[in-house]
Amino acid sequence: MGRVTDRRRIIRIDLASTAGNGGRRAGPDTLVAEEPLEIRVGPAGTVRPPLVVTMRTPGDDLDLAIGFLVTEGVIESAADVVTARLCAGADQPNDYNVVDVTLAPGRPVPATGRAFPATSSCGVCGKASIDAVRTRSRFPVAGDPVRVAAATLATLPDRLRAGQRVFARTGGLHAAGLFTAAGELVAVREDVGRHNAVDKLVGWAARAGRLPLRGHLLLVSGRAGFELTQKAWMAGIPVLAAVSAPSTLAASLADEAGMTLVGFLRGATMNVYAGAGRVT
Amino acid sequence: MGRVTDRRRIIRIDLASTAGNGGRRAGPDTLVAEEPLEIRVGPAGTVRPPLVVTMRTPGDDLDLAIGFLVTEGVIESAADVVTARLCAGADQPNDYNVVDVTLAPGRPVPATGRAFPATSSCGVCGKASIDAVRTRSRFPVAGDPVRVAAATLATLPDRLRAGQRVFARTGGLHAAGLFTAAGELVAVREDVGRHNAVDKLVGWAARAGRLPLRGHLLLVSGRAGFELTQKAWMAGIPVLAAVSAPSTLAASLADEAGMTLVGFLRGATMNVYAGAGRVT
Repeated sequence: MGRVTDRRRIIRIDLASTAGNGGRRAGPDTLVAEEPLEIRVGPAGTVRPPLVVTMRTPGDDLDLAIGFLVTEGVIESAADVVTARLCAGADQPNDYNVVDVTLAPGRPVPATGRAFPATSSCGVCGKASIDAVRTRSRFPVAGDPVRVAAATLATLPDRLRAGQRVFARTGGLHAAGLFTAAGELVAVREDVGRHNAVDKLVGWAARAGRLPLRGHLLLVSGRAGFELTQKAWMAGIPVLAAVSAPSTLAASLADEAGMTLVGFLRGATMNVYAGAGRVT
Repeated sequence: MGRVTDRRRIIRIDLASTAGNGGRRAGPDTLVAEEPLEIRVGPAGTVRPPLVVTMRTPGDDLDLAIGFLVTEGVIESAADVVTARLCAGADQPNDYNVVDVTLAPGRPVPATGRAFPATSSCGVCGKASIDAVRTRSRFPVAGDPVRVAAATLATLPDRLRAGQRVFARTGGLHAAGLFTAAGELVAVREDVGRHNAVDKLVGWAARAGRLPLRGHLLLVSGRAGFELTQKAWMAGIPVLAAVSAPSTLAASLADEAGMTLVGFLRGATMNVYAGAGRVT
């Protein structure tokens, strides 16, 4: 797992400790890795300019790039990509912090002037105008007939946590989990940024030919904002659940898309903000 | 507080409830508001193109815009801005989701082609290349002689929470608090995005002529990533503390800048990742 985490010597302070040194103790700690990833996109046979840089936890970088392009509406499926390669950057040859994506012939190349989102935690912004914030999904989810039992939803946070490999060592990672309606964990991805975790999941599904993700549930470890809701819609996911709070715009978008939005999913309680008909 | 929150009818489910309806109960809930804010920047006498759109909680929008420009290195102080106005957008005249900033004569106008960060949760990315990720601070913090007692640090999370007005009603807001070395709360800002909360604080300080924020502490309610660390450095803040985990790159940047970085600040315990000499 190399660069997914790194160790560092730190000072731990425990004011309640009765040991010497005023409760100070030096020792190693494991931190979650965060590095920039540059995504370059263009047709074959061209020098591709960078489209965006996102701060991410290394790993699943091709999935992250493909998922980002899907959830931002640049491509519709993995078939729109001829090749995606992880490359060394010009300055730091051993970092492999660049993904170079060759689009299929005829696929429109996004203008690099368009200020893209790309952040460790978010997905939609950096757009050049408010009009550009909304990306329309080509996958209608309103008619998805999936139903999920509230009792099943209640089990998902523990299942997601059990699937997280890195969180236990660092306490510093967001997670996104894809589940069946029966509550089976299909895949889990972790990242220092919650939007990256979702993009890694969606990119994995796109490369496996699984889009749209009809009948599936997406659980995120934090809050559900507009951007995560839009990413779920772009992947055709009908049910989004979050451990923490949703925003007003997330609830409005879920309404508009015909998605089910569950928030504050904790223990035996949860709030349903949209599409309650799917929760049985 | 109008648009800071909004009410919505939701379904609450409590599987442990013995009431009828299988523990389902409909009722109103208060959600944190999330809306796009477009920041336009340019010299006087021009039609200014949008620089970026960020998803934010309405309120303190001028502070947010000025703080964003400071922490991204577009301006150095409020003196670089002639006027900043909150405007109606072209399409939605009643929304006031646009801030129009007139730069002082001679101040370089950032290229709109530069994909700016701007997100509800992050600050650095969306840059056009990895080289552009790092923004150099003009405020040296390494020599800041401030000292803070670990016992004082331990009190800050409760003081921050006490200063949050909106969190209690929605459970959905990040907060950033500026403190003196003695632990007095100078200012607190809340936002659906944690980077916005910091930008609102920094913008407030810039407009009040308080930059650099020598001798101050910044506490954030979540994690400390590279981007928040860089924003603190850009404002000249020598001590950054976070309730949750830092990332590898945040710790490296704090080292490089000579900042103090404290993580997992909870109850009587905390971890010091950089600059431990300031913690007494």
